[in-house]
Amino acid sequence: MLSLMTARDGNGLLSRRHFVAGGAGLLVATPAALAGLDLPPGMTRPGGGFGVYGQPSPHEKHTARAIAANRDLPGNGVSWTPLQDLEGIITPSGLHFERHHGGVPAIDPAQHRLGLHGRVGKPLTWTVAELLRYPRVTRQLFIECGGNSNSLWNAEPRQTSAGAMHGLASCSEWTGVPLRLLLEEAGAEKGATWLIAEGADAGGLHLSIPMKKAMDDCMLALWQNGERLRPEQGYPMRLVVPGWEGVTHVKWLHRLELASEPAMSRFETGRYTDLLPSGKARQFSFVIEPKSVITSPSPGQLLRDKGVYQISGLAWSGRGAVKKVEVSADGGKTWVQAALDGPVQRQCFTRFRIAWQWRGQAALLKSRVTDDTGASQPERSALVAERGRHGEFQFNGIVCWAVDEDGEVSHVYA
Amino acid sequence: MLSLMTARDGNGLLSRRHFVAGGAGLLVATPAALAGLDLPPGMTRPGGGFGVYGQPSPHEKHTARAIAANRDLPGNGVSWTPLQDLEGIITPSGLHFERHHGGVPAIDPAQHRLGLHGRVGKPLTWTVAELLRYPRVTRQLFIECGGNSNSLWNAEPRQTSAGAMHGLASCSEWTGVPLRLLLEEAGAEKGATWLIAEGADAGGLHLSIPMKKAMDDCMLALWQNGERLRPEQGYPMRLVVPGWEGVTHVKWLHRLELASEPAMSRFETGRYTDLLPSGKARQFSFVIEPKSVITSPSPGQLLRDKGVYQISGLAWSGRGAVKKVEVSADGGKTWVQAALDGPVQRQCFTRFRIAWQWRGQAALLKSRVTDDTGASQPERSALVAERGRHGEFQFNGIVCWAVDEDGEVSHVYA
Repeated sequence: MLSLMTARDGNGLLSRRHFVAGGAGLLVATPAALAGLDLPPGMTRPGGGFGVYGQPSPHEKHTARAIAANRDLPGNGVSWTPLQDLEGIITPSGLHFERHHGGVPAIDPAQHRLGLHGRVGKPLTWTVAELLRYPRVTRQLFIECGGNSNSLWNAEPRQTSAGAMHGLASCSEWTGVPLRLLLEEAGAEKGATWLIAEGADAGGLHLSIPMKKAMDDCMLALWQNGERLRPEQGYPMRLVVPGWEGVTHVKWLHRLELASEPAMSRFETGRYTDLLPSGKARQFSFVIEPKSVITSPSPGQLLRDKGVYQISGLAWSGRGAVKKVEVSADGGKTWVQAALDGPVQRQCFTRFRIAWQWRGQAALLKSRVTDDTGASQPERSALVAERGRHGEFQFNGIVCWAVDEDGEVSHVYA
Repeated sequence: MLSLMTARDGNGLLSRRHFVAGGAGLLVATPAALAGLDLPPGMTRPGGGFGVYGQPSPHEKHTARAIAANRDLPGNGVSWTPLQDLEGIITPSGLHFERHHGGVPAIDPAQHRLGLHGRVGKPLTWTVAELLRYPRVTRQLFIECGGNSNSLWNAEPRQTSAGAMHGLASCSEWTGVPLRLLLEEAGAEKGATWLIAEGADAGGLHLSIPMKKAMDDCMLALWQNGERLRPEQGYPMRLVVPGWEGVTHVKWLHRLELASEPAMSRFETGRYTDLLPSGKARQFSFVIEPKSVITSPSPGQLLRDKGVYQISGLAWSGRGAVKKVEVSADGGKTWVQAALDGPVQRQCFTRFRIAWQWRGQAALLKSRVTDDTGASQPERSALVAERGRHGEFQFNGIVCWAVDEDGEVSHVYA
């Protein structure tokens, strides 16, 4: 059993353990009376039958994506993954975040074609059936929209759930064809330094990706979490660009073009860029910098009783693997290293956990990730100072949740 | 580029590579004509809007569980995971196999209680809300029904899909409370050597588990693949017993009892036991032995064209981690080691892949896993000889798919 609560305890953090020895503050159960063991009603008659495809319990309807749709532009908007209601690292496919600029096209896979042209030896097209002949690879990877957490550029902290703030990030097991194989089959001309990828959605969202990345670890994904892609995730195929911002993972992929220059499309000029204090724009900022967020406890949740809680959250980095996550319960004065759920995978969500004794005191909870390149999360104030007043994308500053004496959790800048 | 096809090539297996260098037999694409790049219809108008919870494409309705329900016993039956249509290692929760003996109870989580009694220091009960206060752990783990693959005990090979034969096995990311914490809170009496776990389904399915395992790595699971359990997977809580046969993973868990003897319930006496040639019964055969199955190509699939294919499948062992998987294309005369998708996790599905040149020849495809304890899969004939004519559970023999000259795949005993 742990000896609890010393003066040097960082406001209740219990070393890096992610759970405490049995009995140490965990006396949550109720002594059993016989009434507590009454026969549940489901035991007295046969239950429901078999289904070809299961769905969540009707009691869990609150575990849903929050939606912000643009009424003036049909199909333009976002939906957020409810990170505060989820556990582990896998996001259920039905709860993966969405960011659509022209809505979700209804694509008949029998009619869909992927074309590859431009500065290639020979232009090629593939049907879905032809792509199913190619070798496949599988990886568990996060995808984060470059616009995730953008309310944290605001002057005042937004009060909403962790998911509605930071849930334009999700993590799935993706399976598909190594993009390199398709590019090698067509043959790149010398000077083909950019790959332009276009989706079959309204407006034809297209993005430019350096050939070096395209030939490295990119994937033409056809499966997500074991089954074929969901329509809102790009059915029948999308690009997966490990560790790079979400807009490069072009959905409903129908056209690849090799070129000697980027397309300078709307989504790499007018959007997904940041005007810096110098007057220059931050452009082609592809890599997702290290980031973490505490999902439990988080705003909207309530600590009803004093005692030991498990602080838990998600960390990730587009640069590589999470090396360590530190947690503070006193606003950053002291930090304690959290435990990481294994196996830790590159460019993948990593779940961290640490035990915390809440004695009814006010607390400021923060998490800070460091990845295996040594890169870490900056304090929000430092990030805002660096990027200036026009920040809109790629917020990866440290997030702070305040717990008050009543156990209520809110979002603060501290 | 590989040099293909030597006399010593094991009927087309291309070393352990899981894919071949670009261009080596991968010329599947069609040279692009301009017609191939016509504007898809979805690009000319905005697509569909946002949803709070996504569903698969209507074009993928064939990816569904096969069902065999007992008409005379409502709620008794099975549904199989369509392994042949899936990729990677994660089974979507909606496609996880089901084996119910009394149907799926509709449980209101606010009314549900978990009780712990018997040879304990103090009997306890928990509500779901109380259990949510406990520390959590997450693991990606397979669950396999002890009755999986039972048609392979038959004298003649069954002709159906890989999933409908071997799909009472699925793999998910499970999150929950270490069972040890609950048992420690109640306090076990000396001599409490068995844990009896009972579900709140009709008939109250209950099973006995040695305390040593219960205190080791068992989990009271509340989440599957990131979200709360699905009803057919035990909502609001089930036992997860890593690497042990599925029936021990008691669903809709409502009662735990510590005892000095097993319950000798129906499901550990009349069922999930095997009568051996000696006349003795094989009982409490908890651990899932090493097993593998090729999911692509597999029966019902057709090789339409000659060329390079990626043979792919799943391997697992309840004893630990998959160490190696070997594949044969000549019925077991020669074996070549396949590549394993990483990270390889203990008591978890592991995906294997190997490139194979099909020149239109007849072939007999087999896979054979060896785990990190050195245990391996026996040939079916050896397993049948050992277990005798009354085998019904825990089939882990080597499976053989025959490919004929027309590219049709069937199930054979060879």
